[in-house]
Parts: sequence; structure tokens; C-alpha cells
Amino acid sequence: MYLTQFVHRGLRLYPERTAVRVAGRERSFRELADRIARLAAVLRGIGLRDDDRVAMLAHNSERQLEYQMAVPWCGGVLNPCNTRWSEPELLYALDDSESTMLLVDETFATMGARLHSRARTLRELIYCGAGPAPAGMHDYEALLARTPPQADQVRRAHDLAGVFYTGGTTGFPKGVMLSHTNLCSSALALLSEGVFPQGTYLHAAPMFHLADFGMGLVQWAAGNTHAIIPGFNPAGVLDAFERERVTHTLLVPTMIQMLVDHPADRARDLSSLRTIVYGASPMPDRLLERAMAAFPGVDFVQAYGMTELAPLGTISPALYQRPENRHLGKRGSVGRAGVCVELRIVDSADSELPRGEVGEIAARGANVMRGYWNKPQATADALRNGWLHTGDLGYMDEDGFVFLVDRAKDMIISGGENVYSAEVENALMQHQTVAACAVIGIPSERWGESVHACVMPRPGAQVSTEELLVHCHGLIAGYKCPRSIEFVDSLPLSGAGKVLKAKLRERYLRDEPLRPPGATHTS
Amino acid sequence: MYLTQFVHRGLRLYPERTAVRVAGRERSFRELADRIARLAAVLRGIGLRDDDRVAMLAHNSERQLEYQMAVPWCGGVLNPCNTRWSEPELLYALDDSESTMLLVDETFATMGARLHSRARTLRELIYCGAGPAPAGMHDYEALLARTPPQADQVRRAHDLAGVFYTGGTTGFPKGVMLSHTNLCSSALALLSEGVFPQGTYLHAAPMFHLADFGMGLVQWAAGNTHAIIPGFNPAGVLDAFERERVTHTLLVPTMIQMLVDHPADRARDLSSLRTIVYGASPMPDRLLERAMAAFPGVDFVQAYGMTELAPLGTISPALYQRPENRHLGKRGSVGRAGVCVELRIVDSADSELPRGEVGEIAARGANVMRGYWNKPQATADALRNGWLHTGDLGYMDEDGFVFLVDRAKDMIISGGENVYSAEVENALMQHQTVAACAVIGIPSERWGESVHACVMPRPGAQVSTEELLVHCHGLIAGYKCPRSIEFVDSLPLSGAGKVLKAKLRERYLRDEPLRPPGATHTS
Repeated sequence: MYLTQFVHRGLRLYPERTAVRVAGRERSFRELADRIARLAAVLRGIGLRDDDRVAMLAHNSERQLEYQMAVPWCGGVLNPCNTRWSEPELLYALDDSESTMLLVDETFATMGARLHSRARTLRELIYCGAGPAPAGMHDYEALLARTPPQADQVRRAHDLAGVFYTGGTTGFPKGVMLSHTNLCSSALALLSEGVFPQGTYLHAAPMFHLADFGMGLVQWAAGNTHAIIPGFNPAGVLDAFERERVTHTLLVPTMIQMLVDHPADRARDLSSLRTIVYGASPMPDRLLERAMAAFPGVDFVQAYGMTELAPLGTISPALYQRPENRHLGKRGSVGRAGVCVELRIVDSADSELPRGEVGEIAARGANVMRGYWNKPQATADALRNGWLHTGDLGYMDEDGFVFLVDRAKDMIISGGENVYSAEVENALMQHQTVAACAVIGIPSERWGESVHACVMPRPGAQVSTEELLVHCHGLIAGYKCPRSIEFVDSLPLSGAGKVLKAKLRERYLRDEPLRPPGATHTS
Repeated sequence: MYLTQFVHRGLRLYPERTAVRVAGRERSFRELADRIARLAAVLRGIGLRDDDRVAMLAHNSERQLEYQMAVPWCGGVLNPCNTRWSEPELLYALDDSESTMLLVDETFATMGARLHSRARTLRELIYCGAGPAPAGMHDYEALLARTPPQADQVRRAHDLAGVFYTGGTTGFPKGVMLSHTNLCSSALALLSEGVFPQGTYLHAAPMFHLADFGMGLVQWAAGNTHAIIPGFNPAGVLDAFERERVTHTLLVPTMIQMLVDHPADRARDLSSLRTIVYGASPMPDRLLERAMAAFPGVDFVQAYGMTELAPLGTISPALYQRPENRHLGKRGSVGRAGVCVELRIVDSADSELPRGEVGEIAARGANVMRGYWNKPQATADALRNGWLHTGDLGYMDEDGFVFLVDRAKDMIISGGENVYSAEVENALMQHQTVAACAVIGIPSERWGESVHACVMPRPGAQVSTEELLVHCHGLIAGYKCPRSIEFVDSLPLSGAGKVLKAKLRERYLRDEPLRPPGATHTS
């Protein structure tokens, strides 16, 4: 299996069907495939060799879809960049993956130029935004127009399709290596669940994210139309639902919250909408109820996954979310393992636990990543005994439904984005006034969790919350920066000298669970 | 992906669900998995090493299902034998594959003993039939009862899952090497079509055949129940439909013909039946109409495939067969490529032909075989330029629907079984009286095609039809033996000295297409 087989499928089975629809503009599968084959030739023309990594830093667009297929089409490897990352983080990912080319749109042209001057291996910049390309950058459309399409180089199943960066428990991002088989088997497993309608899928979540990438691949396989908006905002999504006659989409709970909170400024015809898939962070029961009321008749399908699973772990069809099926007791579950993956709950010795007992969720299957790029030790740790250790804690009921209870990894999920505490702590510790710190997630109605830092200043040092925030924003993505900082005189330590985060979290958990924390404390 | 992941799936997600139902007896997935793990330990216990081939020669039974999973579970490779093959053919497959173990039931115990004494590498015979094991054979149930289950050895995706023998264009059978990925991707593609109901699948077609094996794998993935009857006969199938509350099954057109011809000896409740999948040979339109009338409300799904495709090539959902959709013009088509496979129509130079033009059907994808066992040249020929050349001729319409028109290979499809003319000619030529011969398929209402031989005796030789038939039955399977023999003074030859078979077929095609041929000619 290889990604581009779905492009051929489109060409052979439904060449004239609408493949992509953006702001009312349409292209058929034939037209899209032609542009993909041209972009592939463009990349080869400016020097791409087999297995070279090609990065893209841009908001959602049709060109992101073209990039996703053109890079494998010409034998390259994808490296989609998180648009919310800071310059040092982006630079880390480009350098670590040794990407040689970067595509940027108008929003990221300036950043692209800066990265170009600093990244070690980055040779070519391609401008895929509106208007003419800035100096020093190739012009996407101009090159496409004058470059004849090339034949698919046809990647093999085990070949690397992409390096997808996620935050890291060690304080640095990790590049998840996914093969063509990894990605395709996840897509086929999703497809075989039969939970998505034929029709139009809206890319509302960021396309650089593997959750949306994976859903996009399902649409390719099913021959569905891709509708694309530049990024999530409630009115934009609701407008797109109506304008593009969207049948299904993927949203994280925070986005759903924003949709249901959005004032009904006018009556919209949302009758085409059939299915909303959600995942990435826990869905509060109350929010699910509100969402079902706001979108009557729409199926709410829950999925659980991660980059390392390319991304499908479990899926819970809509029937388990419906109020009339509450007695089945599965609504709190993220569902059952996708058909290509085995899941089990293990103890610290990697033995499978009896049903109902909490342990770490481990996965095995065709969708499990090849490993972490350039990180053999992290790979060996994660994939020990042939199973991926997800770092998530949960239990499985008698019917194989998985219930998440916590994360073994020190990670916060805020607005659907994973924030590793170590990355935030690493940034804080680089400030000269910080003696020690601990970053935890605290309940937030809007974000699910929000990033909270407990900072112990060096003796005699003076520092403000604002100063630390500015410092952090220079090093890490905005969504990773603390939303609240609390200055403390000491941190509770274990006998081994490790910060007892559970103790820090306690006072927030004793509060009303979904209340935002109080005002930021300053020293 | 690997076959046994579906056993683990059964164990984790629905251990108490009925996995198999035979003659009113049931076993759960937990019980079936336990027997599979025990059989795996039994095979290891009597000396199986990684990648050893294990053959089975038996009618359909629960043990065939156990064999299919136990052999990969313990690291072996399947070699299911065609029960209709002659002793020399079976010996050829056992020797060619170097199988070290053979399972036989009561019907094939005597044959098993003979094969054991003659096959070069066959060491162990396992008796899995009724009653106690004959001398010199291991007793399946006795060994299972006293052998504790072993852990799954977990085959890798590219590992060989089985060597599946098919007839050969060169006069000898060929062993098709299928990997775990080949078989699993075909199953996942079938599953993702969403054309099969949840429920009970009836193994009515022979389980050694890859068509039924492939369908069985879909049931494993879907968590459906396997109902099994020893073999096809019309009353037995109709009884099983009723008794086991069968929801779907796979039948070849000849079987469907026998079902609709079967006198309604009593009223049966067939209300559970939802779907019949058919394929392997062309379905006459009149027969399809009769079948739809005989099974009202049942979906008729057409599939096209072959062992080399593990086995899925195309699928045509029921809607295209329905009378009210005749105007769509797809009923004569075998459908569109499964989601894991690309199909194209090529000319003799391997260039893709425009839509509507007849050429050879070529396939590429995760389901395409690894090659022919021990036949590098045949493999290179079949898989040239990265595509499997199916030997079938057809065209593709604008919507990607494939229409079969003929076979490029010199092959006859009789009752759903492939008969290679070369194999029959090879057998005939071994008779001392035969100077030359040509074997063709001629239209048959019952079998689709029937095997017809044109024999040119040596000058002065005397031979009867009966004598030649007895001779053939000693060498090749009964279904391959000619149903009619015509003695001729000469055969029409091309300039290159090749028999012009089209010329021989002409007079049968000029007749009413579906009339059986006249009486056998004797000299």
C-alpha cells in the first residue's frame, strides 16, 4: 500500500468527480492528479532525491493537499510543520529531519526566509501563497504552469512516507516515522468501520496534524470531495458546512465547544451534515449533549489515536454516543480497536491486565510507527516487546471497549494539542531567574486543560509573570506557554527528588472540575 | 498485518460470541482461539520449524478453520490441497512446496497414507477425521487434548502465509506465494466495501480454495460466525441457510444454478439470508434473474479475483445487479477495483489502453502475490513492470467498471474451477496412441464451460474415449478431464505450427451459446 494509489484510484474510477472545493472553486480528480504530478516534477526539477524530506509551513489550502501526495509521488518524505510552533521549534524539526525543501504560504513567508537562513540543510524555498513569490523563493504556480507532469515513482509499502513531529517527553520534539503501510492501513481500517458518509469532508482542523491527514486519506480512498477552509473559526466552519454542503468533518472538543457557543447570527442550512468525528482530548458529557442538541440528527463518532498510530487507535460509532443507548455504558469509552490494530492494557512488566484494571495502553499492528527519527533509544523504549507503549492509562471492559483514565506521560492536552510538560519546563529553566519549576495541566472549560506553571525563583531574583511569558514565547509555541504562573517557595519532592505533580494538581482537582483557574499569581 | 491478529481481535473484543457453528454445535471465539493455540503447539511439538509448509487435504470442517490460523500462529506456511486433484497432482504440490506435514480427514486417509509413502519431504501425517486415527498417523483431537496452548509467534507482514496451488499454463500447477499482507489487505478491502452483513457466513464453497479462504478472513475481521458444511450440495446448502440462520455466503454460478434447479421439497425459512457473493466464472443473465426470483430480497454481489490477487480484484455491489438499475449498464461488469488494488487495461507492450478498448487486465497493489514458488521465470513474466498480468482480457468503462471478454491464457472455467488446457493436453499426450491434441472449453449450461478434447491418434492406433478418460483420471483431477472427446484427422495449425483453437471453438459458438455439446464422438 502506498499513499499515491488513491490518486490513481481517483483517476481511474471517477476522474470527473469533484476532488476538492475551496471557497466555491472546484477541481476534479483528474485536475488535482495533474497538479500533483506537476508539483512532483517541480520538486524533482529543483533537486529532490529519493527519501529527501520536504517540509511545509502553511495554513490549510488545496496546496497542502497537493503537497501531501506530490512528495510521495516523486519519492520524497513529508514533514508537515505545526504552524503554531515557535521559530526555535520549527528550526529544530527542520534540522533534525534534515529537510532540504520548505513550502510556505503568505502567512509564513517571513518565517520561511528566517528559517532558510538558519536551517542547516534547507536549500529550496517554495512560495505557495497568494500573489507573486518574494525574492529568493520559487513560485509554486509559475513552476507548476511550465512543468510537465511526471510519472509516479511508486513508493513501496515499507518506505517512509513522512516524519511527523510531536512534542517530546524529554523536552524536545520527536519525529514520528510513518511508512506508507502505516498510513494506508489506518485509513483502510477507518474506512472499513463504515461510519463515514459518501460526500464532502471539511478540513477544518489543521491539515499538518496527523488526525486531519489521516481523515483526508480516508476521503481519498472513498473518493469523497475535500472541502478546505484556511483554519478553524466557528463562523467559518458553519459557513463552510452550508456553502460546501459538507457531510462530515473532524473536530476536537474545544472546536465543538466554540461551535455550540457561537451565537446563531443567522439561520444556516446544515441539512447536508451527517457525521462529526471527534477526538484528541476528552469530551465532557455536558458538551456532547449540547453538541447533539445543536446538530440534531448528526452522528457523533469518537476516535482515539496518536501520531505513533498513524493515527487510528480506537473508534466508537455514533450509536454508543446516543442518549437512548446510555444504558450500554459505552459513552465514556473511546471505543474499540480499529481492525488493523491490537490493543491491550499492560502493567509495568508488560503483562496484560485483567479486564477493568487500569494500566498502560499498548498497541501492535500495521499502523504502528516505524520509530522515532534519529532516536533509537526512544524508539526502543516505546516499541519494547513488539508493542507501542502509548503512555496513556486506561482499562478495557469485557467487550473490548477502552476507557481512558489518565496519561502515564507527563503531558497536557490543551485545545486538542499535546503539550509535554518537559518542553515547557525546559523553556522556563532557560530563564536565569528560575531555580526550579513544574508544569501541570489544570481543568479548563474552554481548553479541556490549560498549562499551569509553578515556578520557584532563585533566591533574591525578581521576575514577573509577563517577563517569563515573553521568554517562553520566544522559545516554544504559544499554545504550550503557561496560561497561568504561580510563584512558589518550594516544590513538593519525592524521596528520589522528583517533583510530586499529583500533589500540585490536587488543589485544582478539589475545585469544581471544569472551572477555569483563578487569576494568575505574581510574586 | 498478519492473519492471526484477527484471532486476537476475537479474543479481546468478543470472546464469548459464537465463532463457529457446525451441524448445530457451537464454539465461541475464546474456545476456537484456544484450539488454534493448541494445534499450533501440536505442530511445533512434532517438529515444525519456522516457514515449514503444512498441507491439508480434507473436506470443509471446523478443523480446516483451525488449520488456517494455527499454521501461521506457530510460524508455518499453509498449503491447502485441492480435494479434487489426482494423486500425481497432489504429489506434485507436496513435493514442489516441500511440505513436511499433512492433515487428512476420513475421506482422504487412504490417499494421505499413499502420499506419505511417496512424497519426498512429507514426514508427519495428522488425522483430523472422525473416529480414531489410523496407524502411522497422529490423532488431531488426542494431541489437542493433551497439549497446552502456545503463544502466537506473530508473523511479519511480508512473511509467507501460504503457497496456494493453481493450474498452470505450462501444464504443471503453480504455487502462488501469498504474504500475510497480501491476504489481509484483500480482506480489509472487501470489508471496507460494506457489502456484507453482520451475522453468519456459510462456508459452502471448498475451504481450500482461496475464494472461500478470503471470504473467511473477512468474517474473522468482522467478528462474524463461521457456519460450515462438509461440501456443496443444493439440499445441504438450503438446509444450512435455514438451520444456521445464515446471513451471507459465497457461491459460484454453477452452484447457484443447482440451487435454483433444486426442487422445493419442503418450505424452508430463508429469511435470515441477506447476501450472496458470486464469482469465479461468468454469470449468465438468465441465471441471475432466476436466482433473484428464487431468493427475493437477497443482495447479489459480484466479485472477480484470482489466487494471485489474494484474491480480490474487483467488486460490484448488489445495486448494479438489480433489475431497476439495468439502465446503468453495469450488470455485465465484474465491478470496480477493490480499494487496495489498482487495475488497468494494457496492450501487449504494457501501455494502458483508452477506455472501452479490450486488452489484458493488469493489477498492482498490496494484495498482489509475492510470486510463484520455485518459478522465477514464471514470476518475472507475470509480474513484469511491477504489474501482475492476469491473463484475462477485458475493457474498462469511463467509470472504471471492468468488463471481462475473454481469457488471454488458454484456460477453461468449468463449474468455477480453472482448467488449464495445457494440463489436460499434457495428460492426453502421455497416452501412447495420441499423436496430437487440443483442449478447448465449449459452452455448457450447467458448468459454464466444459472441457472438450480434439484428439488426433497416431496412424494406425486404436483407442476409445473410455480408454483415454481412464488414462486422464489417473493423472489429473476429474474436473479437468474431458467431458467430451472428438477424434480428428488433423488439427488446424497457424503458420508457426500452433493449433488455432479459435477455429476449433468456432462451431460450438455458432450453435446456441448455452446448449451442451452433442454426444461424444468415438473413432
